[in-house]
Amino acid sequence: MNLSEFRAHYEPLIQQELAEQIQMLSIPASLKESMHYSLQAGGKRIRPILLLAVLHELGQDHPDALKVAASIEMIHTYSLIHDDLPSMDNDDLRRGMPTNHKVFGEAVAILAGDALLTYSFGVLARLNHVSSDDKVRLIDLLSVAAGAEGMVGGQVLDIEGEEKKLSLEELEQVHRLKTGALLTYSILAGAILGNAQPEEMVALVKFGEHIGLAFQIQDDILDVTGTSQELGKTAGKDESSAKSTYPGLLTLPKAKEKLDFHANEALQAVSVLGGKTSLLEELTALIVKRKS
Amino acid sequence: MNLSEFRAHYEPLIQQELAEQIQMLSIPASLKESMHYSLQAGGKRIRPILLLAVLHELGQDHPDALKVAASIEMIHTYSLIHDDLPSMDNDDLRRGMPTNHKVFGEAVAILAGDALLTYSFGVLARLNHVSSDDKVRLIDLLSVAAGAEGMVGGQVLDIEGEEKKLSLEELEQVHRLKTGALLTYSILAGAILGNAQPEEMVALVKFGEHIGLAFQIQDDILDVTGTSQELGKTAGKDESSAKSTYPGLLTLPKAKEKLDFHANEALQAVSVLGGKTSLLEELTALIVKRKS
Repeated sequence: MNLSEFRAHYEPLIQQELAEQIQMLSIPASLKESMHYSLQAGGKRIRPILLLAVLHELGQDHPDALKVAASIEMIHTYSLIHDDLPSMDNDDLRRGMPTNHKVFGEAVAILAGDALLTYSFGVLARLNHVSSDDKVRLIDLLSVAAGAEGMVGGQVLDIEGEEKKLSLEELEQVHRLKTGALLTYSILAGAILGNAQPEEMVALVKFGEHIGLAFQIQDDILDVTGTSQELGKTAGKDESSAKSTYPGLLTLPKAKEKLDFHANEALQAVSVLGGKTSLLEELTALIVKRKS
Repeated sequence: MNLSEFRAHYEPLIQQELAEQIQMLSIPASLKESMHYSLQAGGKRIRPILLLAVLHELGQDHPDALKVAASIEMIHTYSLIHDDLPSMDNDDLRRGMPTNHKVFGEAVAILAGDALLTYSFGVLARLNHVSSDDKVRLIDLLSVAAGAEGMVGGQVLDIEGEEKKLSLEELEQVHRLKTGALLTYSILAGAILGNAQPEEMVALVKFGEHIGLAFQIQDDILDVTGTSQELGKTAGKDESSAKSTYPGLLTLPKAKEKLDFHANEALQAVSVLGGKTSLLEELTALIVKRKS
């Protein structure tokens, strides 16, 4: 199965799993609609696909894989809802649709984010086919990746970075935390469900770190080279806000070189897994070549 | 040990545990300060004290009790930070001090809340003296109590209730979710750490539900009868905002009757525990008689 086939197979299943997880909640209608709206707004589902691809490359299948994948997408989606708020990035468009607070108001948007974050831990705690030890491992890793020492900390650095010129090192630290931590967690979660050996785990973490940086560099490049229509969000926003970016710090050609460097490092990392890596290689190419 | 002595003993320990849990994080300074600010702003620590009191009444001690207590206070504190935001209750004062967003700005306040919520699950996952099975149980119960089917759902109902007159039944549902769920979880967490028997668990849950409602009725009564100085927040806010409250729906004397009813039910529930309930009885009295 190549990556297109793999995604065509799994994306509807991820969508369905997310819809079912929300549908089963007995909660106020506005809250349910708000959670559902942002989860179903689509996007590339890169984190769930990464988890499922790692599991596949390890030659494993797992009856709870879609639930774990859904729990990661909930965390990612909550972070987008909160990042888009007026007091943060103040974005009106996300994935080509009005942002959550534009549709449901700020209060419900904040609470929908809180609810998705909280629920994702509950989904992990209630998995049916994972030992308590492994549930605790997943929850521990997720709380670090998504929390103050990971994604939330990265968002704080990102906001503070808007007011000053960051060094390349500082910019990388923002991205490692803001985007990289949850991408790497997605890979680790797949490795845990797939009973990866320690050396496979190390290779996969290295892979995750490099594609995380590649992902963000491409994000910055797209903000310069893409159109709002392609991106489904406002293009050129970084430059108009004088935000530190890879193209801004390095020039566009040098940023593209750095993108290639991290893509190559990612490919080299997974090459030790012994050939069963075609999906991860294609995913790397997808991240580098994506237009949105 | 009576309740005053119990609180005098434990409150500094809870304070210290919270400070240590935040201190050990390697995170941006503004985020750390913001999390620390609201955790240290004091308050009655009713949830941690409930957990510790239940454990004590069960004749048990537990080396991780303070950590679990701290994780609950983190959830409670995150909910206060988010509830106080301009798009929610828009409060400038909390516990007599400027609210988090007044000091750190809305963006950091939202993220500090997100970080505290996320961290609380991590603290539970990393307990040293609790089995993985019990960690999963605590995390499962917490995610329900704090999430869309609990506290967050209650906050949505509370906001939506501001725009219409609620029935008494609807008002109780708001409070069961918004305040009651986390209070009951605090009690359950103590019961789990204290290896409570099934019949003790049932009695304690019933106790929790009644003191939860008593707590909220007293909150509504204090908003009518208290001063801003006593409360450490703006008094008379419910009436000026035409919010549904117990005194508003029932009259003040009837609200006080209802408060007594739930306090008596709470006392009756714990009476089956067989005498080891003086702290829980005193806690009930404290909730009924508190001035803030």
